[in-house]
Amino acid sequence: MSDLLSRLRAGLPDGALLTDPDVMASYSHDMASFCPAGRPAAVVLPRSLEEVRHVMRTASELRVPVVPQGARTGLSGAANAVDGCVVLSLLRMDRVLEIDPVNRIAVVEPGVVNADLSKAVAAHGLAYPPDPSSWEQCTIGGNIGTGSGGLCCVKYGVTAEYVLGLDVVLADGRLLSTGRRTAKGVAGYDLTRLFVGAEGTLGVVVRAVLALRPAPAPQLALAAEFGSARDAGEAVARIMAEGHTPSLLELMDSTTIVAVNRLTRMSLPESTRALLLAAFDTPDPAADLAAVGELCRAAGANAVVPAEDEAESGMLLAARRAALPALEAVTGTTMIDDVCVPRSRLADLLEGTAAIAERHRLTIGVCAHAGDGNTHPVVCFDPADPDESRRARLSFDEIMGLGLELGGTITGEHGVGVLKREWLARELGPVGLEMQRSIRRAFDPLGILNPGKVL
Amino acid sequence: MSDLLSRLRAGLPDGALLTDPDVMASYSHDMASFCPAGRPAAVVLPRSLEEVRHVMRTASELRVPVVPQGARTGLSGAANAVDGCVVLSLLRMDRVLEIDPVNRIAVVEPGVVNADLSKAVAAHGLAYPPDPSSWEQCTIGGNIGTGSGGLCCVKYGVTAEYVLGLDVVLADGRLLSTGRRTAKGVAGYDLTRLFVGAEGTLGVVVRAVLALRPAPAPQLALAAEFGSARDAGEAVARIMAEGHTPSLLELMDSTTIVAVNRLTRMSLPESTRALLLAAFDTPDPAADLAAVGELCRAAGANAVVPAEDEAESGMLLAARRAALPALEAVTGTTMIDDVCVPRSRLADLLEGTAAIAERHRLTIGVCAHAGDGNTHPVVCFDPADPDESRRARLSFDEIMGLGLELGGTITGEHGVGVLKREWLARELGPVGLEMQRSIRRAFDPLGILNPGKVL
Repeated sequence: MSDLLSRLRAGLPDGALLTDPDVMASYSHDMASFCPAGRPAAVVLPRSLEEVRHVMRTASELRVPVVPQGARTGLSGAANAVDGCVVLSLLRMDRVLEIDPVNRIAVVEPGVVNADLSKAVAAHGLAYPPDPSSWEQCTIGGNIGTGSGGLCCVKYGVTAEYVLGLDVVLADGRLLSTGRRTAKGVAGYDLTRLFVGAEGTLGVVVRAVLALRPAPAPQLALAAEFGSARDAGEAVARIMAEGHTPSLLELMDSTTIVAVNRLTRMSLPESTRALLLAAFDTPDPAADLAAVGELCRAAGANAVVPAEDEAESGMLLAARRAALPALEAVTGTTMIDDVCVPRSRLADLLEGTAAIAERHRLTIGVCAHAGDGNTHPVVCFDPADPDESRRARLSFDEIMGLGLELGGTITGEHGVGVLKREWLARELGPVGLEMQRSIRRAFDPLGILNPGKVL
Repeated sequence: MSDLLSRLRAGLPDGALLTDPDVMASYSHDMASFCPAGRPAAVVLPRSLEEVRHVMRTASELRVPVVPQGARTGLSGAANAVDGCVVLSLLRMDRVLEIDPVNRIAVVEPGVVNADLSKAVAAHGLAYPPDPSSWEQCTIGGNIGTGSGGLCCVKYGVTAEYVLGLDVVLADGRLLSTGRRTAKGVAGYDLTRLFVGAEGTLGVVVRAVLALRPAPAPQLALAAEFGSARDAGEAVARIMAEGHTPSLLELMDSTTIVAVNRLTRMSLPESTRALLLAAFDTPDPAADLAAVGELCRAAGANAVVPAEDEAESGMLLAARRAALPALEAVTGTTMIDDVCVPRSRLADLLEGTAAIAERHRLTIGVCAHAGDGNTHPVVCFDPADPDESRRARLSFDEIMGLGLELGGTITGEHGVGVLKREWLARELGPVGLEMQRSIRRAFDPLGILNPGKVL
């Protein structure tokens, strides 16, 4: 241990190495429930590529595990420390190195906060679309690690689609450059994409070339109230089958609506069983909303309320953004699931989740990126109640099982981490698991990068 | 050899195994120049997953190389036979298994022709965007193998962005399923993307889940005539920096214009040094074209000619589609390069290519997916003239060198194959090359899948 610390210190500037136990404890876990976290031997906050390489070389030589970390807003325990590890926090590598409007790219360090990048590129009339709920805290490096999504994915896609190239420090300290700065490129295997969603198990991202888009027009939104999840699901199916491309298509169930009302005093209609929010940023959003409103009515909506203007649209979106904090406020603790199903199976997932909640006598609110079929069933429980905690964990797993049955995946955008590791094996099957493991071995033969995570 | 044939025959129906030397010769190469092709020991045309597995098991047991093949329209020799190999042609696995408008996916076998899929999904109001020049012959399996692009990529992206999941037969005959049918998913490493562009070196794709889009509106196009490549490049930079999203942004140099006129009698303006074609499929394409026309004029265009209607737009696009055949007709043989540079460096690439052509006393016409910075310098030469052939090969390489100098890649959409193997090593660098090789070893430890290709 003292060897580790002295070796680390030798290649780091003052203040980059933290060893105070209380301080280290604050770096020991992300925001996931039910995920074990170990005690780090050290926390390193590098500011440069060379410092990262020094950490990885040292860790390789001493066979010490390294846990790369962003803002620890993750929901699967991927950033949790393991005993005796070096926590490698990239928070101080937070420079936007370049914004290029002609080539529509940004070059950034991993510690740049998502919202900061969004603001920086907006000044050039550009957008970096992926917008996870934690966008005001989470970092681009963390987004790349987990393959983050967000509200805008239904039109603009996920993090993976915006990562063109990466500089990655490998387990042994070598520097690997992947990908490109160009709009297209097929030279060799796509290693860039392999690192997106790898949760720090294949290497440490120290620099990213990101694709940008022209800034979209402001969104105009509507809310549609349904008497059942089935009707809301039918509306989603019709909207997508008719060829619409909403910039947002979100759903909240009645449990979520009640919780949001309680937290925000928004007075959403509590008799509603499912509230669908749709938005367009097209040249004529009112016309698109009118067409979508008709489809909602045809699918059985009790009411369709289009926003009059941007301000009203913003209020509807604020209700959706409040969903997670509102459900967290119900019992103080939640587990947020992240099952993504084919969007045609959305209603099946919602009804099945309601049945699971009833069977386990739990409050489970569902909000969903409905257009993507990506649902977030939020299991509320009291961690001081062992039986309720057990039922919460059970229901969380049953929802993943239901998602797989419906042809979906256990994680649409939150990642595997510690929380869903066993379930990943079920989703991948034995051949898939073996091939994934062989890739991991190729990048990290000593097994020092984020051990115990993903697979 | 006879052991190989009898073993293969034992698991294949009549007609699936071809051994006639003349017939086999017709399966021995794709459309690339300067790429060696060996003599296959057998050509197999399977109709089912199980037949593919039988071939791979047999080949693994006997350590016989296998070369997977689509329609052999490739331009890098990736589909070329190696001596004693089994050519595994997927042409007969050509079923569209499913088209799902709600989830916007198609499930297809690899031998489906790109144009056939496009027609099939158009009947549902949907589109499969990637549209390589060979779209009426090339197969989806080949598109996946090479990571194909096309004219529409500037707005709609490349093949990789449309492949959600794959069934792949591995080198040893095991079946690997990757990815998903859902809009999002981050469960484990992205193996799907690894197979896209792998040119059959990691496994044999036998089934693909493809993402579809709503069919776009018809395009309206304009042509802008420039007195220099520099001005045309400036126009491209301004169009993209202003936040436009054209559905097509193509460029032809004067050599190409002359060749097209000769082949088609289109009477394009031969005094023009660079012809830029832009198109929009937006709700108001005429307004977008007017804005882009202004930008072209500001960048120095001598003339801007908007199409009056869809028919006129079609004629402009036909001119672009005629570019490759027209350049081929110049001397009978061409090498088509595929360098992609940051779009801000387009003029540098064009000017540099013109200098290379002059130095080597060759005709090199350039057409380019200008919006992507993806250029196709077409080197025309007489293969019966050894010195001209040598100069052709030399200039082809110099263009790749120039592309790398300008921050680009040696291949935007055609792949590496045999043709660019040495250049791939230069682009990737030693660490990149080593990591790519270790991935290949993980999938194909015996080295039987398309040996000698890519890396």
